[in-house]
Amino acid sequence: MAGEDRRLANGGGRIDFETDPTRYRHWKLAVDGDVATLTLDVDEKGGLFEGYELKLNSYDLGVDIELADAFERLRFEHPAVRVVLLRSGKPRVFCAGANIRMLAGASHGHKVNFCKFTNETRNAIEDASEHSGVRTICVINGTAAGGGYELALAADHIILVDDGSAAVSLPEVPLLAVLPGTGGLTRVTDKRLVRRDLADVFCTTEEGVKGKRAVEWRLVDEIAPNTKLEAAVTARAQELAKKSSRPPVAMGIALPPLERNVTPDGRTYNHLSVAFARAERLATLTLRGPEAPPPADVDAMGAQGVAFWPLALARELDDAILDIRLNEPDIAALVFKSEGDGAAVVAYDDFLEVNREHWLAREISLKWKRVLKRIDLTSRTLVALVEPGSCFAGTLAELVLAADRSYMLIGEADGDNRAPPTLMLSEMNFDAYPMSNGLTRLASRFLGQEAPQDRAYAELGKPLDAEAAEQLGLVTFTLDDIDWEDEIRIFLEERASFSADALTGLEANLRFGGPETMESKIFARLTAWQNWIFQRPNAIGDEGALKRYGTGQKPVFDTKRV
Amino acid sequence: MAGEDRRLANGGGRIDFETDPTRYRHWKLAVDGDVATLTLDVDEKGGLFEGYELKLNSYDLGVDIELADAFERLRFEHPAVRVVLLRSGKPRVFCAGANIRMLAGASHGHKVNFCKFTNETRNAIEDASEHSGVRTICVINGTAAGGGYELALAADHIILVDDGSAAVSLPEVPLLAVLPGTGGLTRVTDKRLVRRDLADVFCTTEEGVKGKRAVEWRLVDEIAPNTKLEAAVTARAQELAKKSSRPPVAMGIALPPLERNVTPDGRTYNHLSVAFARAERLATLTLRGPEAPPPADVDAMGAQGVAFWPLALARELDDAILDIRLNEPDIAALVFKSEGDGAAVVAYDDFLEVNREHWLAREISLKWKRVLKRIDLTSRTLVALVEPGSCFAGTLAELVLAADRSYMLIGEADGDNRAPPTLMLSEMNFDAYPMSNGLTRLASRFLGQEAPQDRAYAELGKPLDAEAAEQLGLVTFTLDDIDWEDEIRIFLEERASFSADALTGLEANLRFGGPETMESKIFARLTAWQNWIFQRPNAIGDEGALKRYGTGQKPVFDTKRV
Repeated sequence: MAGEDRRLANGGGRIDFETDPTRYRHWKLAVDGDVATLTLDVDEKGGLFEGYELKLNSYDLGVDIELADAFERLRFEHPAVRVVLLRSGKPRVFCAGANIRMLAGASHGHKVNFCKFTNETRNAIEDASEHSGVRTICVINGTAAGGGYELALAADHIILVDDGSAAVSLPEVPLLAVLPGTGGLTRVTDKRLVRRDLADVFCTTEEGVKGKRAVEWRLVDEIAPNTKLEAAVTARAQELAKKSSRPPVAMGIALPPLERNVTPDGRTYNHLSVAFARAERLATLTLRGPEAPPPADVDAMGAQGVAFWPLALARELDDAILDIRLNEPDIAALVFKSEGDGAAVVAYDDFLEVNREHWLAREISLKWKRVLKRIDLTSRTLVALVEPGSCFAGTLAELVLAADRSYMLIGEADGDNRAPPTLMLSEMNFDAYPMSNGLTRLASRFLGQEAPQDRAYAELGKPLDAEAAEQLGLVTFTLDDIDWEDEIRIFLEERASFSADALTGLEANLRFGGPETMESKIFARLTAWQNWIFQRPNAIGDEGALKRYGTGQKPVFDTKRV
Repeated sequence: MAGEDRRLANGGGRIDFETDPTRYRHWKLAVDGDVATLTLDVDEKGGLFEGYELKLNSYDLGVDIELADAFERLRFEHPAVRVVLLRSGKPRVFCAGANIRMLAGASHGHKVNFCKFTNETRNAIEDASEHSGVRTICVINGTAAGGGYELALAADHIILVDDGSAAVSLPEVPLLAVLPGTGGLTRVTDKRLVRRDLADVFCTTEEGVKGKRAVEWRLVDEIAPNTKLEAAVTARAQELAKKSSRPPVAMGIALPPLERNVTPDGRTYNHLSVAFARAERLATLTLRGPEAPPPADVDAMGAQGVAFWPLALARELDDAILDIRLNEPDIAALVFKSEGDGAAVVAYDDFLEVNREHWLAREISLKWKRVLKRIDLTSRTLVALVEPGSCFAGTLAELVLAADRSYMLIGEADGDNRAPPTLMLSEMNFDAYPMSNGLTRLASRFLGQEAPQDRAYAELGKPLDAEAAEQLGLVTFTLDDIDWEDEIRIFLEERASFSADALTGLEANLRFGGPETMESKIFARLTAWQNWIFQRPNAIGDEGALKRYGTGQKPVFDTKRV
C-alpha cells in the first residue's frame, strides 16, 4: 500500500495524483502574457506522509505531483505561454532535492516509483520544450542540490546567481551513498555535455560548483550577480519567447477534476473502468471507445474541451496507471480490454492526424504519447485481450503493441452473438507515439526489419481478424473459444507465480530493444543502478549513509567493490 | 578474496587466468585446416571452487577462462582458422549454463565479476568474427539452457538438432528468479531480432523452444535431423570459411605462459609492475615503455612474437586487471603510472598503424582494444598520474583518457632532474580503440563536440606539457610540485571513503556517455538489472529461488512489484 512504512499525512489510504492550482501547497503558478512563473515555496508541514518536514525547499512525491500538474495546465490551459521560469520562493536556496528523511524511511518500492514519477515529470518538461515550444528557464538563487539541480537540468537554460555562495551540486554519492535519482548523471554528460572527468569531480564534491567554474564546466548556462539577475532573466525570457515555435493562441481549455467513482475493488471513470482482482493479483482496465463521431472541426473540438474523447480517456488512463503504480504494489499484471467500435476510434485518430498542426490536437497526441510511455515504464506485466466487442484500433491498438503478451480470439465466443474481434491500424501507429527508445511500438516490435512494418502499413484502416493479425505479427497468440479461458487463466496464474523482481528486470530489458535515447538511458541504465544501490547496506543498512544522514554518526561501509 | 564463501579447489589463494590447451580440463581445441573445433566436455570434478560438481556441461569461471584462452590462441596461434565450431562432447546436452550451485553459494561480488568475464568472453567471440573474420558456428546437439544458449547467441550461426527433444531455453526467470546474466535478453532482441512478445514467451518457458518453432522465432538459424547434422555443419562451415575476410596466413605466433613474479604485495611482469597498498586500498600499475625501437618490418615483428612490446604489455595488463577484479575486491582505485619515452611508444603506434592490414599488427591493436575495454568496465576508480619520466603517449595515453580522473604535474618535481612530463597523441587515439559505446575515448570525452577533437588532432605527435594538455582538455587537473602529493593523497583518501556501491554506479554512468551499442547495453542495462536482482531476497534469500533450487522446496516470493 501507499505508505507501507508510513501513514499518509491526510489520513487517506491512497496517494492521489489529482490536484489543481487552488490546492497547491508548494508551487505557485503565475501567468503573465507569454511568460509563466512557477515558484517553488515548499510548505515544510505539507509532506505527503507523516514523519518528516520538507525543509529547504526539499520535496517528496506530493510536491512533484503539483509540478507535473502545473506543466499539464501550461500545455492545455495556457497555450499562450512560451517561456516558463522555474524559481524559488525562499531566499538563498533554490531546492535541496528529494527530502532525505522521506527517502530514509520510504519502502524500496516507494523510492523507486517516486524516482520514476519525478523522472517522467522532468521528461515532460523537456517534451514541452521540444514538441510544444514551451521553453523553461531555471533561475537558481542559492543552493540547488541533488534533485534541485536535476530539476534545473530539465530546463533549456540555467541561470545561477553569482554571489559567492550559490552553487549547483549533486552530493548524493559523497553524502548519501546513492546516485542522483532523477537523471542527473545522464543529463550532465549527455545533455549538458560536461566532460566526464569533470562530471566525476562535480558528482563527488559535496559543496558543488559555483560562479565562473559552473559556466566553464557547462553545468549552468550563465551567471549573474544579484543586482543584474532580474535583468538577465527578463532578457533571456524575451529571447526564448521570440524563438518559440508555439503558435499564438489566446484561449486554452480548462482541466477540471476527473469524474471518477472509487470503490475498494476498483474505480470507474467516464471512459475507463479499473477492476482489481486482488486474490489473482490482477487489474483489468477496460477502455471504452467513443460514443459519437469526431467533432466537425477544431473549434468544435475546443468547445468539447476535456470531454473530447481522446483527451478524456488519456487523462483517465494516466490517473489509473499512476494509482496502480503507487497504491497497488501487489498487482502483478495489468490486463487491458476495450469496448466499442474500432472504426470510430480510427475516425478520431484521423481527425487528430488531419489537424496535427492545430495546437490542441497536437497537445492531445503528445498527451497520449506520454501516457503510453508511462505504461511502457510500468513494472507490471502488461497483457492485452482482444475479444468480441473490443475496439483495439489506432491509438488503442498501441496498448496491444505495448503489452508483453497479447491474445486474440479466433472467431466468436460461445454464447456471444457479437462478431469476431478485429484489430485496426491507423496512421498514428506509424509515427505519433515513439517509445522512450525513440522508436514506435511497431518499429520496436519489428526491430531492424522494414518488411513487416510495410506489410502492416498496407493494411491501414482495414479490420484485421485473428488470422490476419497473427500473420502480420501484431498479436502474440490467437486462440479459439475452446482454449481461450483456460490458456489465459494459466498464463496469468503462472505469471503471478514468478519472482516480481525477475519479471521487472526481464520486462525492462525486452520492452526496449534497439537504440537508446537519453530518456531510455535514464530509465534503464541509471534507474537500474540506482535500484541496485537502493538495496545495498552501504545506503540503507542501519550503518548506511541514508540511514545515518543527519544523525552525526558517520556511515560504515562495506569497502568491497563488485 | 577470491573465494570469500568458498575455497579454491586447487588449494591456492588466487584465481589464475593463465592457462593453455595442455592444461584444459573442460574444453578441447582441435584445428583442421581453416576449421577449428572447440568441444565442451566439462569435467564434473573440475570446478574452480570446492562444493559443487559441474554436471551436464554446466560451467563456472574456470571453464570460461579456458574458453577465453582458446579464442586468444585462435587469433594469434592459428591465423589460418576461419571458422570455429562450438560443440558439446556429451550426448544430448550442449550446455546447461552457469552452474546453479556455484551461483547459489557465490558471493555477490564473485557472481557479478563472473558474469562480467563471461560477457567479455562472448563479446570477444563476436569481435573475432567482426574484425578478424573468425566466424563461429554453434552446433546444439541437445539441451542449451541459460548460459548454454547465451554462448550460442555469441555465434554467427546456430544449428539445432531436430530430434524432438533438443531445445534452446533461457529458464532463469521461471526457475531461478534471476535474469540470463550473459547478454541473453539483449542478444535475443537486438542481435537475433526475436519479436519482443515472443521473447517474453521464450524467456518464461522453462522447457524452452525446439524444432521448427525455434527457427520461426529466429532463436536458431537452422535445424537438422541427427542423420543430416554433420552434413549441415560441414556445409555451413565451408560456406562461412569461403566468406571469411581472414587473410591466408600459415604460421601464427605462440602464446607461452606470461613471465611474472607474484609476491603478497604485488606482481612484476616484464613491462608492468603492480603494487598493492592494502591499507590505502590502492593498486599502482606502472607500465614501462619499449626499450628498443620498433622492428624493421612485419617479419621482424613476427620473429619477436609475444616479446613484441605492444603485445607483451597488453597480455600483462590484461592479466593484472583480471587478477585485481577477482582476487582483490577491497582495492578501491587503480592508479596508472608509466615510465619510458613517449616518442618511442608513438613509434610503435605508428608501426602498427602503417601495418594495420597485416594480420598480426591488426590482432595486436584488437587485443589492446579489448584490454582497454576491460579497464573501462572494471568497477574500481581509475586514476592516471602523469609524472616526470612517464610515457603516456598514443596507446598508453588511452589510460589517461580512460581514467575517471587524471593529474599531471606542472614543471619538474623537486629533487628530480627529469624533464617535466608530457602527453602525446598518435593516430591510434583517434580510431583504433573504440569503447563499448562505439566511440573512442576522445570522442566520449568531448561528447557531441567536434572542435576539441580537431584541436587535439592538430597536436598529433607533439609533446604536450601540462598547460597544453589542460588547454586541450586531456587531463582533469594540473598541479605543481608543491600541491602534487597532498592533493593526490587527499583525493585518494576521499575516494576510498565513499560507498563502494555508489562509486560503481557513478562510474558506470559517467564513463559511457552518449550512444549505446548492444555491448554497452549488456554491461549497463542488463548487468545493472541483474546486479539488483542478485541482491533481492526473491533470488538469494533463504526462501529465494536460487537458494531453494534443487531442494524440492518451492521458493517463497515477496510479490510486490517495484
